[in-house]
Amino acid sequence: MKVAFQGELGAYSEEAGYGYFDAPEMVPQESFDDVFAAVTSGACHSGLIPIENSLAGSIYQNYDLLLRHDLYIVGEYFLPVRHCLIGFPGVELSGIKHVISHPQALGQCAGYLRELGVKTEPVYDTAGSVKILKSSGERTMAAIASKQAAEIYEMKVLQESIEDNPENYTRFLEIKLEPVKPDRKAKTSIVFTLKNQPGALYDALGVFASQDIDLTKIESRPLAGKPWEYLFYMDFITTRGKESAQQALDDLREFALTLRILGTYPRFEA
Amino acid sequence: MKVAFQGELGAYSEEAGYGYFDAPEMVPQESFDDVFAAVTSGACHSGLIPIENSLAGSIYQNYDLLLRHDLYIVGEYFLPVRHCLIGFPGVELSGIKHVISHPQALGQCAGYLRELGVKTEPVYDTAGSVKILKSSGERTMAAIASKQAAEIYEMKVLQESIEDNPENYTRFLEIKLEPVKPDRKAKTSIVFTLKNQPGALYDALGVFASQDIDLTKIESRPLAGKPWEYLFYMDFITTRGKESAQQALDDLREFALTLRILGTYPRFEA
Repeated sequence: MKVAFQGELGAYSEEAGYGYFDAPEMVPQESFDDVFAAVTSGACHSGLIPIENSLAGSIYQNYDLLLRHDLYIVGEYFLPVRHCLIGFPGVELSGIKHVISHPQALGQCAGYLRELGVKTEPVYDTAGSVKILKSSGERTMAAIASKQAAEIYEMKVLQESIEDNPENYTRFLEIKLEPVKPDRKAKTSIVFTLKNQPGALYDALGVFASQDIDLTKIESRPLAGKPWEYLFYMDFITTRGKESAQQALDDLREFALTLRILGTYPRFEA
Repeated sequence: MKVAFQGELGAYSEEAGYGYFDAPEMVPQESFDDVFAAVTSGACHSGLIPIENSLAGSIYQNYDLLLRHDLYIVGEYFLPVRHCLIGFPGVELSGIKHVISHPQALGQCAGYLRELGVKTEPVYDTAGSVKILKSSGERTMAAIASKQAAEIYEMKVLQESIEDNPENYTRFLEIKLEPVKPDRKAKTSIVFTLKNQPGALYDALGVFASQDIDLTKIESRPLAGKPWEYLFYMDFITTRGKESAQQALDDLREFALTLRILGTYPRFEA
């Protein structure tokens, strides 16, 4: 089972793969485009892509790639992001003078780092910061990344879960060439556009409300080059079975300008 | 007129300040927290913060800071992000062998860079990449940042507007200690939470639809630590005057669990 993911070995996407799949072979790719290409060509059975983070929001790049490709969302996974402070084996926490990582990770651990009284320096990637640390040989320096990254580079976890806000998770989607047909507790992801007029979104939501459908995400995004026109990203779960979802989508199709169903898939349960 | 912004001199936030204000004194701050602190303390008259980017989405960190502080949104500005390839004076485009910048900027210029046939290396910041380039003295290297950054570091713009997607803009908000009362073409930004039940959002949108109010943004965000509960970020413009907005907000208040009005301000017009 080959699974394409974006990033260096030790990236949070790789960690998500080990949590979500049963014994996957995780295949690193340079870019998200490469993940989609690996699945489209059949080189990998699945791709695993981050779609949103609880602190940083939606990853539009992957929504754009979903619209440009004919792949299906077949599953979802929520990974709690647990940042670790990582140093050389034998080093103690008290010996750390400065810390490197991706700016987002440094920002998410800012309170902890301030208390520790260390200097920080931003680098391009979390897993990459461990690689940089190792090749520097600098024993008063530490990196912030996943536990996995510490293991891969044979470094030591000095402290776990150093993020200031413990409610930091990333939602991942599994993408494949063929769709699945989940029996129950299904979630559906769609993208649609509406006529630009007051009340248009209200009318669109009415088709879901009338079927007792629970929305789990809605987000408007201005359409590039078209002021006043929007894409809507929506996820919903059905409480009355798949016929109600089908009915809502049929109704929506009647007044949406465009509608794309990205996939119906089993809802993640921890 | 002192305006706090986050970033190095030459950052896109500084550029936005020169576009939005009349002869401002732009005061760089290390973090977004520092921008809010500078306005709260009165050290700066205003702050200018990015709130969303057309390719990268909402900047939740600044929404969180808006909720944690008692400041008001008093204006908005849309900055087209025009990336420049920047090198040493006297250097020609053909002499460039590798390019450094923030990973997001490198990604937004990936097609151009591929065609140029150069190697790329990610660094922590766009304006910072020009600083790094200058201190390296490396004349076969170039950086990607704003025109402003090239001027500040007395470097040369080798090529302008090298981004693959020209529809790349960032929306900024001006924040102050006191609210404004715009006369016409007002936009209002609110944050609210609803009971977790099917149709709750539909009902909420009904109060706006019944006043012919145009929504320009809606986005759900899961509430940290509370599965199934969401914050909603919404911007709207009134077509029938401020009484209709007041009526809609009064109606919304009746069934929203929480409602915070971040500000009513003149809508940006290019």
